[in-house]
Amino acid sequence: MDAQLSIRRVGIDTWRENVAYLHRECPVVRAAGFQALAKVTVRANGMAINAVLNVVDDDHIVGACELGLSEDAFARLQVAEGHAAAIAHAEPAPSLVALHRKIAGERLAREDWHAIIRDVAAARYTKIELAAFVVATHQTDLDRDEVLHLTEAMIAAGRRLDWGAQVRGGPVVDKHCIGGIPGNRTSMLVVPIVSAHGMLCPKTSSRAITSPAGTADTMEVLAQVELPFERLAQIVRETGACLAWGGTAELSPADDILIAVERPLALDSPGQMVASILSKKIAAGSTHLVLDIPMGPSAKVRSMPEAQRLKKLFEYVARRLNLQLDVVITDGHQPIGRGIGPVLEARDVMLVLRNDPAAPADLRQKALMLAGRMIEFDPDVRGGDGWRIARDILESGRALAQMEAIIAAQGPRSQPIAAGALVHGVPAARAGVVRSIDNLRLARIARLAGAPQVPGAGVDLLVKSGEAVESGAPLYRIHAQYPADLGFARALADADSGYVIDGAPQPVVDAPEALA
Amino acid sequence: MDAQLSIRRVGIDTWRENVAYLHRECPVVRAAGFQALAKVTVRANGMAINAVLNVVDDDHIVGACELGLSEDAFARLQVAEGHAAAIAHAEPAPSLVALHRKIAGERLAREDWHAIIRDVAAARYTKIELAAFVVATHQTDLDRDEVLHLTEAMIAAGRRLDWGAQVRGGPVVDKHCIGGIPGNRTSMLVVPIVSAHGMLCPKTSSRAITSPAGTADTMEVLAQVELPFERLAQIVRETGACLAWGGTAELSPADDILIAVERPLALDSPGQMVASILSKKIAAGSTHLVLDIPMGPSAKVRSMPEAQRLKKLFEYVARRLNLQLDVVITDGHQPIGRGIGPVLEARDVMLVLRNDPAAPADLRQKALMLAGRMIEFDPDVRGGDGWRIARDILESGRALAQMEAIIAAQGPRSQPIAAGALVHGVPAARAGVVRSIDNLRLARIARLAGAPQVPGAGVDLLVKSGEAVESGAPLYRIHAQYPADLGFARALADADSGYVIDGAPQPVVDAPEALA
Repeated sequence: MDAQLSIRRVGIDTWRENVAYLHRECPVVRAAGFQALAKVTVRANGMAINAVLNVVDDDHIVGACELGLSEDAFARLQVAEGHAAAIAHAEPAPSLVALHRKIAGERLAREDWHAIIRDVAAARYTKIELAAFVVATHQTDLDRDEVLHLTEAMIAAGRRLDWGAQVRGGPVVDKHCIGGIPGNRTSMLVVPIVSAHGMLCPKTSSRAITSPAGTADTMEVLAQVELPFERLAQIVRETGACLAWGGTAELSPADDILIAVERPLALDSPGQMVASILSKKIAAGSTHLVLDIPMGPSAKVRSMPEAQRLKKLFEYVARRLNLQLDVVITDGHQPIGRGIGPVLEARDVMLVLRNDPAAPADLRQKALMLAGRMIEFDPDVRGGDGWRIARDILESGRALAQMEAIIAAQGPRSQPIAAGALVHGVPAARAGVVRSIDNLRLARIARLAGAPQVPGAGVDLLVKSGEAVESGAPLYRIHAQYPADLGFARALADADSGYVIDGAPQPVVDAPEALA
Repeated sequence: MDAQLSIRRVGIDTWRENVAYLHRECPVVRAAGFQALAKVTVRANGMAINAVLNVVDDDHIVGACELGLSEDAFARLQVAEGHAAAIAHAEPAPSLVALHRKIAGERLAREDWHAIIRDVAAARYTKIELAAFVVATHQTDLDRDEVLHLTEAMIAAGRRLDWGAQVRGGPVVDKHCIGGIPGNRTSMLVVPIVSAHGMLCPKTSSRAITSPAGTADTMEVLAQVELPFERLAQIVRETGACLAWGGTAELSPADDILIAVERPLALDSPGQMVASILSKKIAAGSTHLVLDIPMGPSAKVRSMPEAQRLKKLFEYVARRLNLQLDVVITDGHQPIGRGIGPVLEARDVMLVLRNDPAAPADLRQKALMLAGRMIEFDPDVRGGDGWRIARDILESGRALAQMEAIIAAQGPRSQPIAAGALVHGVPAARAGVVRSIDNLRLARIARLAGAPQVPGAGVDLLVKSGEAVESGAPLYRIHAQYPADLGFARALADADSGYVIDGAPQPVVDAPEALA
């Protein structure tokens, strides 16, 4: 039932979903009874992709004998415009049988996970099928071997880096935080510290998805972060580190596709989180990982039993995949540091690196703790010495020098970016002691103010938990570039500042990292 | 954050998903940080719709200050081209909180179901969210009150017909089959019989979705089936009946949208099936319904316990919604009649109506049984008399005359359509007695032969269960119009004919309807 058509690139970005555009009067559409949303296979020059069909009534988009492809589909097929192509009803992805078994609540075997992830990575699943997979694996708790097999499958579906030549058998170290805590920009401190200690730390980070800033957004305030892979490898060889944007599509193509569905559904099940994080770290060539699980009432993980279950799941999968893993459960009951938003967070990072007395103490302490645990992956470092070594590197200025070397290698930004010039102070509704700060609320206010698209936008905290405030004194300042943004953010903060203030002073709760 | 743009209709049919097209260089895209797949709200002239964003790089599709809308989105917004419009990040659909509770496995309350279906019907769910809803309600068995509330909500979301003036309190009767049995074209017999008896039977049917023919496709061989609603109502007033295409979008808009997701996922859970069928029947104004549940090894329902559970669920919901329901569990172990495909099935129907000795006995018997049960909804008919009345109507030629009146009223087809001229006989692999015929296999062969897009294509069964065949004698003939179609269908039939033939004759299994 294949028929000959001519390939045309259609300038429509449909993200990771391949879309094929056929004219309603196309003889193939009429003969084969194609309908909008039908799943089709496009074949040209020995290549084949699956796509969802959109039926077109406008000759400007595609002619009657043309087969239009959305940007991603065109790139994936790798065939020039005008090339002959054939289209047919797609055979269902082979792994849909396994997907249906998962929907029915069954446990899947290793080969099922590999088959599903192979099909996902090859873009053989429609958005609808991807959503079905995400919900089905969310609803039926995966057992730990299912999570292991999912992780393995995600690694197998992408490219895997090997830093062996650089490290000669030594560790390739990384750190990762499961997210959810605004301002928590420890990577930009940890990477210079541990690489100044001589460890290889090729750190790639994501941009913000739902948060006011990702590490890549914040680093971009100081230096270029979008670098071709070969350049990145050279920087790592020269400096022992990098702080770049991940561009995960090559290393973990399946993860990239699944996240595009998980994000709008706001689903983040433990199994999917573990598979997503560990597959990316292992594909990036890391051998040793410190993982930060912040716990708090407005964090992703809200109780110690939940944090412990997640820790054990990470540990089980990492051990089976030969990744050395050190999980730290940290205090997530408020934002870390003072700034929320790329420019304000970058300012905090540089204050810490410069040993400025105005540097936020919590950000400094947390970075030293995490860097110390990474340094203890070094076989020549005695257990318990890591924190002191990290502190010496920071206080001696070696961490700052290393950060400057990384910035110089990646390409420094020519002009500094200022914090947003429009400012509004949010006042305390009563006098008392700050008991907690709602991470989700502050993140949302910073996003409405314009972060991360407007790098200078965000929130600057003036008071943190345990500190006393007078009634009417400012709790934090909102920075924005546009009046409308400031108005939206201010309205949200006026409705609820996100701060809980007690009338009577209370002792500060012990930070959980002390217990971990 | 709203911004002014000019509406442009983009001639792309994206089925039920609203898509908005914005140029990558559009200042609004840049300022608000929109990305492909973002969910946006489009506002114009007091109307608002939600849509998924596609980012465009081609000025021919949309200019930098235009807001393109896919065909469905344009129709839904009801605003002319060139009209000013604003776009903003969409607020999440209010019922997504309830959806997340369902994904987490909770039981939902009546108001949750109404909120979800209201949002679905208003196209506030993306395809991804629709898929999440379908999978979540499939995975966690709905209890019967949840199914009731889902059904109620689906009725409330659409238009509801009222035939009160026609029937003056009398019954409005309908029949429905849950599907899965090729050739099972009883509606085209039942409707003329019961309307000849004087009952109002305004039957609307669907076209084939995954089967080789729907009732609407088969009726279309004889008469027009796509009629405006007012014309349909007039035909029903004149003849007491109709046999038309449903065009369900108005009566059950939520069902229409959900089916577009259930179909590609091939998910058909009992709760969704009950809500979908009963909501459409009640919205169409039916007061009395005979429901056919075929049971057999290759039918949708494969065991008597499963059939009984489904029957009780239908009965519970129907009773609560004041629909008189008579559920019949029928023999689904092989196709009904001889023809599979629109033309061949229409031939069978007309043979039965003409009392032709060559008419398939099983189709005739099943139609009389169902018509008889519908006739017993008549308060003036004694229990047990329905079958005899139906037979008298059929044998006297009154059913044929009524069918001719319906055809004349809907508009007869000017030229008869012939069965596909390319024919291949599929031979028996051995001598013996036919024990069973695989419904799914025969349906697939008929579809590959071209049905229903090619109305004359399909399969014509020459031997049914319980009959003896010689080795090499033809079991059925494949009809096609195009050589390629015949080749595909023949290859599938050669691999496995779908017939199970026993060496020794066996007694025919009692048909389950005798037990119902």
